[in-house]
Amino acid sequence: MRWSTLMIVLEVGGIVAFAMSGLIEAMRKRMDVVGVFSVAFVSAFGGGTVRDILLDRRPLFWIEHEGYLWLVGALVLTAPLWLGVAQREVGARLMTLADACGLGLFAIAGTSIALEQGLSPLVSALMGATTAIVGGVARDVLCNEVPQVYRDHRPYALCALAGSAVFLALSAWQVPSVWGSTAGVAVATGSRLLAVALDWRLPRWGRWPR
Amino acid sequence: MRWSTLMIVLEVGGIVAFAMSGLIEAMRKRMDVVGVFSVAFVSAFGGGTVRDILLDRRPLFWIEHEGYLWLVGALVLTAPLWLGVAQREVGARLMTLADACGLGLFAIAGTSIALEQGLSPLVSALMGATTAIVGGVARDVLCNEVPQVYRDHRPYALCALAGSAVFLALSAWQVPSVWGSTAGVAVATGSRLLAVALDWRLPRWGRWPR
Amino acid sequence: MRWSTLMIVLEVGGIVAFAMSGLIEAMRKRMDVVGVFSVAFVSAFGGGTVRDILLDRRPLFWIEHEGYLWLVGALVLTAPLWLGVAQREVGARLMTLADACGLGLFAIAGTSIALEQGLSPLVSALMGATTAIVGGVARDVLCNEVPQVYRDHRPYALCALAGSAVFLALSAWQVPSVWGSTAGVAVATGSRLLAVALDWRLPRWGRWPR
Repeated sequence: MRWSTLMIVLEVGGIVAFAMSGLIEAMRKRMDVVGVFSVAFVSAFGGGTVRDILLDRRPLFWIEHEGYLWLVGALVLTAPLWLGVAQREVGARLMTLADACGLGLFAIAGTSIALEQGLSPLVSALMGATTAIVGGVARDVLCNEVPQVYRDHRPYALCALAGSAVFLALSAWQVPSVWGSTAGVAVATGSRLLAVALDWRLPRWGRWPR
Repeated sequence: MRWSTLMIVLEVGGIVAFAMSGLIEAMRKRMDVVGVFSVAFVSAFGGGTVRDILLDRRPLFWIEHEGYLWLVGALVLTAPLWLGVAQREVGARLMTLADACGLGLFAIAGTSIALEQGLSPLVSALMGATTAIVGGVARDVLCNEVPQVYRDHRPYALCALAGSAVFLALSAWQVPSVWGSTAGVAVATGSRLLAVALDWRLPRWGRWPR
Repeated sequence: MRWSTLMIVLEVGGIVAFAMSGLIEAMRKRMDVVGVFSVAFVSAFGGGTVRDILLDRRPLFWIEHEGYLWLVGALVLTAPLWLGVAQREVGARLMTLADACGLGLFAIAGTSIALEQGLSPLVSALMGATTAIVGGVARDVLCNEVPQVYRDHRPYALCALAGSAVFLALSAWQVPSVWGSTAGVAVATGSRLLAVALDWRLPRWGRWPR
């Protein structure tokens, strides 16, 4: 009971955070309302949609929970009203927190869905990372940028994988899934927040001339 | 009978219009024959393919109606012969008309397919808009541009949504689907033609520094 | 027996070649380890994944053969160790050979899978070409480039189609599939190697101002 309420709070938090990242990116590119809505939608739902297609799950999660669509629609439609305030008062901190919560929740949600389908730990962890990062990758492709998550040299997908690894280990040891999920989300979200706070960097991977 | 003939005329008109938009864009980018064919194909079939995948419909519509493939193939192969003439004699007007017909037909086709699967009006309208715009979005992504439909500040997806709304309202009132479809296509296509003729503009959606 | 061993050798060769092309492209763009892994993965598995989704085949081929994932992961993780050596000693030649083998094998694999599902020769050949080129297209889109295969004016997809045509003709004449597959792979790979060796060029397709 409490767990599923917590799940919904976190999932909604992740959707809002990812939708806002798309919203802001689309506005920077001076898109019109259709562009802003599309990019926000793809950012929020892209990762879960690709996961559902790869695993052949229907209905897609945003068709099953149609409220998520109304939520993102309302966010986009009202954005001109509150965005100036958000920018001055809230700043980047709340965004970073919401984005980290979204990362953790989406990663564990994707991993546990794949595990329930009987897939191997490696594939399950990849499905978790896919759920967490594909929305942002699609956002950047639509905005004609190299995906930020591939080049900003900060741990992001690795935090998702760390959380998934903890979740998978606890599942293998028969820990009840409520505890395993909580620990997985905590590790993914926590390591992401630590990485931002302490400015951890990833090395460039190899060298190639030109 | 007459309706299904009209449907095929319009659907073929839409496919031709979308294929030509891809053809022209690929030529501007100086692509070779493979690039021109691929971009024309993705422009014409991308929207319906994504709709079919999201709704888990198989066979895909262009596998079921293989004639469409031959049509687009023939268009691309003969393009160097007639494109110069088309450019001088026909100009942008016929393209705009065909594109608007394609928009209306694809939007209503997508909406009615989703409605038949028992999906909600909101999801059905989004499937219609997806069918109508994803081809153009994929075309622009392959040509390494920000999608035109997101940034040209003219109503396009909104015309599709208006047509879908009319179609959905008439369906809810038990109007026979022939009339509902006709009205929906007329509203989507007509509002698009009006928007071009009268130079309607969409506002930029919000502001964000840099 | 021997044929399936040969198949696996060639398929692994193709995966390695396509993964390396993604690896190198991602390194050129100065991506971090997550970007390099993602781009290598998409290059190697993108074509087959899109084929499997279009044809509604599950599990996806890289979920069925999980060893392929470990292979690409090991390649990426060890890349900094051997890449400098590869660059000096092996150069572009081995890459071209492996890439051509991958092209041929992926094209015939895609074509024969589609044919087994009862699809028409045209659709089967397109599925073969899709399997062979979509990985490279996705790699270039993620790296924010116009896909190389669309604009380098060298035969690549056409070699895939030529191989598929030979395979389809031999299948239609009831030639045992081992021989048909071998001939198809040989034609696709051989024509690609010839095209590189003899510097064959494709014409620009049509002209369009600006």
